[in-house]
Amino acid sequence: MLIDRLCIIGVGLIGGSLARALRQAGVVSTVVGCSRDEAHLAKARQLGVIDEYATGMAEAVQGADMVVIAVPMQAMRDVFASIKDHLGPETVITDVGSVKGSAVEAAKQVFGEVPARYIPGHPIAGTEKNGVEASFAELYQNRRVIITPLPDSDQAAVNLVSSMWQSAGAEVISMGVEHHDEVLAATSHLPHMLAYALVDTLARMDDKQEIFSYAAGGFRDFTRIASSNPQMWHDICLANQSALQNVLHRFRDDLQMLIEAIEKGDSLYLKETFTRAKLARDKFVSE
Amino acid sequence: MLIDRLCIIGVGLIGGSLARALRQAGVVSTVVGCSRDEAHLAKARQLGVIDEYATGMAEAVQGADMVVIAVPMQAMRDVFASIKDHLGPETVITDVGSVKGSAVEAAKQVFGEVPARYIPGHPIAGTEKNGVEASFAELYQNRRVIITPLPDSDQAAVNLVSSMWQSAGAEVISMGVEHHDEVLAATSHLPHMLAYALVDTLARMDDKQEIFSYAAGGFRDFTRIASSNPQMWHDICLANQSALQNVLHRFRDDLQMLIEAIEKGDSLYLKETFTRAKLARDKFVSE
Repeated sequence: MLIDRLCIIGVGLIGGSLARALRQAGVVSTVVGCSRDEAHLAKARQLGVIDEYATGMAEAVQGADMVVIAVPMQAMRDVFASIKDHLGPETVITDVGSVKGSAVEAAKQVFGEVPARYIPGHPIAGTEKNGVEASFAELYQNRRVIITPLPDSDQAAVNLVSSMWQSAGAEVISMGVEHHDEVLAATSHLPHMLAYALVDTLARMDDKQEIFSYAAGGFRDFTRIASSNPQMWHDICLANQSALQNVLHRFRDDLQMLIEAIEKGDSLYLKETFTRAKLARDKFVSE
Repeated sequence: MLIDRLCIIGVGLIGGSLARALRQAGVVSTVVGCSRDEAHLAKARQLGVIDEYATGMAEAVQGADMVVIAVPMQAMRDVFASIKDHLGPETVITDVGSVKGSAVEAAKQVFGEVPARYIPGHPIAGTEKNGVEASFAELYQNRRVIITPLPDSDQAAVNLVSSMWQSAGAEVISMGVEHHDEVLAATSHLPHMLAYALVDTLARMDDKQEIFSYAAGGFRDFTRIASSNPQMWHDICLANQSALQNVLHRFRDDLQMLIEAIEKGDSLYLKETFTRAKLARDKFVSE
């Protein structure tokens, strides 16, 4: 058995889907769920996502081979503090947060240094839905999971975390903490900011009712991610402040040049920009 | 028969799909296609989209009850000039351009005043594909078509254009020319600018190869419209310059406030903005 006792702290879409996938793959014996909300845990057990549960983290991690922390990023430090004195000598820890720099920083603050058996991770998967009711075993099939081990990380721990995600159907990729946060700022955090800002700009117009009623299919796709969890994206903004600011400034400057080109009727600039974007997008989709 | 002889100038996705829909509905006797490219017309006839064709516009509009101009917006004035002296006294004209102010202006320049039987129109439908090969009869099913009649428009002509689009499965809505251009700037032209600008910003980064390889599902949806025709969007930018500038400035200012809120760690601003956007988006989708 790959993992005898798996503890999932935060049994929502991400944690719940991982539990389902690992159970389905038959690589875990017992899944322990942990949350402050006992009714929620009872529901998760009833759905067959977990076998046991505990509302206290100290109890939940007892005897666990693997602890997966799947809580909002702002809660990471509290979780580390609560489990610190209750981990076994061989227990491996990983998390699923969208920003890795802040997770590593939280671990450092609590443990003094980043534990060798804490391997930061980030599954590039999700839907705009939340909660254990939305979880499903196939969420990670053919998706990527990025892990960001540190120089002092324990190699056996890295291997176990990798094997776990591979068992859930994902491809595992390893990169540096900072690099992860830069790549995600560009490909995920920036688009979310633009979708939120666009929908909010329109929602604050005088004729918003009418505006939304004429929005066609392209708009629907374009703004789907503006339906994501506001609290989660608030957390991501603050956790990845510096990398996000970099790409936001870059985008803002590019947008300003586009605005000026439209103002001046600069045909060449417009055609070149749109063509370059179309080629990049078509190439991306075909790969 | 609603229309005995229908002339479609520009037999691409939009014109071709209209022809297919009207033929399928049995409301047109003969469809004449017009284009400069004879091979293209032969292909359209072979696909069963049109019955006859002509490469010259004077010949194509001969005896037509209805002329639908479905060419790139920059070509509108040339089309008006070419057909001006060959229209019958009862011929009704409409177009499908995304910007109505510039279409009306082109008609004014060519005819001296906007002809009473020219009823500007705009089907809110399309895909990111182009060409008659991509056309299909269901494109307008349950979509909206906006017509923007002028105070001196002929009522029978307005009725015929409306009936034509209804026969193709669309709901027809009437509004003023300027208002149309403002609504479309907000709901369609602005999102396209943002998608193009985002993909271009990423495509010009040093590690663009890697950046695109980590882009997940949300990014794919968000940037689909950046695969649209660059020439067409170049034309739209210049034709709807003023309304587009208004919404671009508004968006730019809102984005700047978001950037500053992230910089200052203004939690309240971020949560309020994201929540307002999510509520507006969820409401829009549920309607």
